[in-house]
Amino acid sequence: MSQTRVDSAPYRPSRRAALASGQPISELMHQALSRPELISLAAGFVEQTTLPLAPSKTAIDRLLTDVAAGRAALQYGTTAGYLPLREALLDRWLKADGVSPDSAQVSVDQVVITAGSNQLLHLAAESMLDPGDIVLCAAPTYFVFLGTLANMGIRSIGVASDGEGMLPDALEATLAELDEKGELPLVKAIYVTSYFDNPGSISLAEERRPQIIDMARRWSRRGRIFVIEDAAYRELRYEGEDIPSMLSFDEAGDTVISAGTFSKCYAPGLRVGWGILPRDLVKPVLEQKGNLDFGSPNFAQHVMHAVLEAGRLDAHIERLRGAYRKKRDAMLEAAEQHFRPLAGVEWIAPRGGLYVWVSLPANIDTGPKGTLFSRAMDAGVLYVPGQYCFPKEGPCQHNTIRLSFGVQPDDRIREGMRLLSEAIAAEMDSSDAEPIEAIL
Amino acid sequence: MSQTRVDSAPYRPSRRAALASGQPISELMHQALSRPELISLAAGFVEQTTLPLAPSKTAIDRLLTDVAAGRAALQYGTTAGYLPLREALLDRWLKADGVSPDSAQVSVDQVVITAGSNQLLHLAAESMLDPGDIVLCAAPTYFVFLGTLANMGIRSIGVASDGEGMLPDALEATLAELDEKGELPLVKAIYVTSYFDNPGSISLAEERRPQIIDMARRWSRRGRIFVIEDAAYRELRYEGEDIPSMLSFDEAGDTVISAGTFSKCYAPGLRVGWGILPRDLVKPVLEQKGNLDFGSPNFAQHVMHAVLEAGRLDAHIERLRGAYRKKRDAMLEAAEQHFRPLAGVEWIAPRGGLYVWVSLPANIDTGPKGTLFSRAMDAGVLYVPGQYCFPKEGPCQHNTIRLSFGVQPDDRIREGMRLLSEAIAAEMDSSDAEPIEAIL
Repeated sequence: MSQTRVDSAPYRPSRRAALASGQPISELMHQALSRPELISLAAGFVEQTTLPLAPSKTAIDRLLTDVAAGRAALQYGTTAGYLPLREALLDRWLKADGVSPDSAQVSVDQVVITAGSNQLLHLAAESMLDPGDIVLCAAPTYFVFLGTLANMGIRSIGVASDGEGMLPDALEATLAELDEKGELPLVKAIYVTSYFDNPGSISLAEERRPQIIDMARRWSRRGRIFVIEDAAYRELRYEGEDIPSMLSFDEAGDTVISAGTFSKCYAPGLRVGWGILPRDLVKPVLEQKGNLDFGSPNFAQHVMHAVLEAGRLDAHIERLRGAYRKKRDAMLEAAEQHFRPLAGVEWIAPRGGLYVWVSLPANIDTGPKGTLFSRAMDAGVLYVPGQYCFPKEGPCQHNTIRLSFGVQPDDRIREGMRLLSEAIAAEMDSSDAEPIEAIL
Repeated sequence: MSQTRVDSAPYRPSRRAALASGQPISELMHQALSRPELISLAAGFVEQTTLPLAPSKTAIDRLLTDVAAGRAALQYGTTAGYLPLREALLDRWLKADGVSPDSAQVSVDQVVITAGSNQLLHLAAESMLDPGDIVLCAAPTYFVFLGTLANMGIRSIGVASDGEGMLPDALEATLAELDEKGELPLVKAIYVTSYFDNPGSISLAEERRPQIIDMARRWSRRGRIFVIEDAAYRELRYEGEDIPSMLSFDEAGDTVISAGTFSKCYAPGLRVGWGILPRDLVKPVLEQKGNLDFGSPNFAQHVMHAVLEAGRLDAHIERLRGAYRKKRDAMLEAAEQHFRPLAGVEWIAPRGGLYVWVSLPANIDTGPKGTLFSRAMDAGVLYVPGQYCFPKEGPCQHNTIRLSFGVQPDDRIREGMRLLSEAIAAEMDSSDAEPIEAIL
């Protein structure tokens, strides 16, 4: 059978494919991968030496030595995920919130296991959003979720925030403005990274939590407005006390979706995340998941459960906190040494998380096409331009940078900070003569 | 801070959520779960006792004992997946096709690792399909993929098939008919389960493979028509020789997407699948995946690679084949004993896969609302109504049943078949008096 030899007919990308290809972050990734000698202060990966070999080995040994347990782990699971794991993590969550299981509004059938918290965000988005709908986010916010939204044709609108997270007054003003424009029915969710957010390592202040939930409910006049709480970094706390989750303030139990993960606090390679959902979102989210992958890999769920059962998670988290605290201190010390002398360079000292958010003088453009970015690359250091972290609509600060102390060892952090400070100093010298308009 | 106490505002499902909630198979699953005493000949799970404890334990022990390898496995991976695993499985695929790596048209950058082959099907669909687009499928075909398509608002159209898979003449006729109606530009893909398909355990005949690819290319006048080859069951062969994949006939390298998985031939709990993609689909598929989960769980990929490296996969597959051959024989013997006496009851004897496809007399409705289904449930046996396996448009046989010999042990298979035959006999007796119109 000979084939007709013709040129390839054109591949016509779907609408989603066309939207996805515009994501700027992939360009950055390509640049980073093509220059492996760079000191990357960009990647949000976790520190290699903290990865939990010993507890994982013990847990897996035990699991695979027990024939019935081992087989169960290697078989298909259910779409919602391994029940004992869901019970254990709900228990853990409620304990952290200071809620007794008996008085809790949520039960285990509202918990679903996903491939990282990211998949939960995606599934929740698929279950409530149509193209043209609106999600309100803090500005700045987690850029991967902005990519997910853009990919789906969703509008993201930034709400001004300060060192304690999204400003309730700014949220109220944004909602009122959208209502005036007749766009309130398009608003389906408010997205908040409640603990040590990516990119600023800022936690939403405790007193703002019920205010934002209350606001979501009050403005749900044209249909439900959900609050999506991304708690991926909750356990990476180096100072101070834990505060109750947004979920714990959702008295009616119909508003908050909480997403969590063991990726940051245990091992991203296992990729076990979860969501705790309002009752009427459980079925739609499971149906979406059923059509995607009918359940996350079962083996990793059984391993995480075995780690929890053996009481190894908390010990690991303590070790992690020590390691990251040290790296954070290295970055902050380097910032004092190298950034402090530069007028107009400011940063937020994080109490948890993996990131330091830096603001430069307003006339410095940190974007991938600006001269600072190429100066930094030439000097041998890579950062994430802050503009990637701003929703498409709303405020955007082109003079910001996200740095991560997650991956690099202390000495590389210090060296990277020194190199970056030199690039910034050079940029400040040259841009004194050049107003921002000429750069943008 | 007190909350405004009001009733919950309505949750407005997204279009996708609304489409997903109509999937009939979830009803069936609920029924099955609520009656655990049933003998399920419905589930396509794999046999519990064949799950590879020993080779997995050996592989993981080795992996976690090597500090660098162990850490790499517990860290984030890349969106495309673990390179050595992609190399190993491409190598294996080419070897099975009798293609030397030097003369192969495909290279490792066209391989992407996914959470089972199902996720690859989903990602490919997202990259090429918009609501209202058309995918042509064999009738019957894999119902989970039909669900994925329905969820996305895609039209699935069935193409008549026989004991050797999709009929090229019927495909040609369907394409010509769509062209006449002006709908050819909507046709984006032809979906074919090339080996031991679900639900019929039918392999597409070797000589039809290049014919279908040729046809896809010839009809690509209004944009590319891809051929999606689902090869999930390729390794589950109990008789005869392997045949070359559809990919091997894609001389221009622009048409065939091949999806495979280790779920059926190794362990579904690890959930490692893959796709081999035409060059211009690689970027869009990776961008979709980046927005969903930025890469499948890394640990399971390293485990699968270690299993392959240790040469343990082939030995396991041999063991599997022996076990499933025995179970298939048990089901076929029971069919001879209990179904043969029933006039008009026919089935296909599979040479691989996990399923037996049964046709009843034309006036028997096997659907979930028909009396046979409830008779079978009352007798204690569950089956998948064949109608679920037919695309929304095109031929549908309401008198068909999908049975699986994957999960149940031999004696339960025999007992399930006996109970089902009694239900069918009773149904035939009662429906003699009742024409099909009265039932439907």
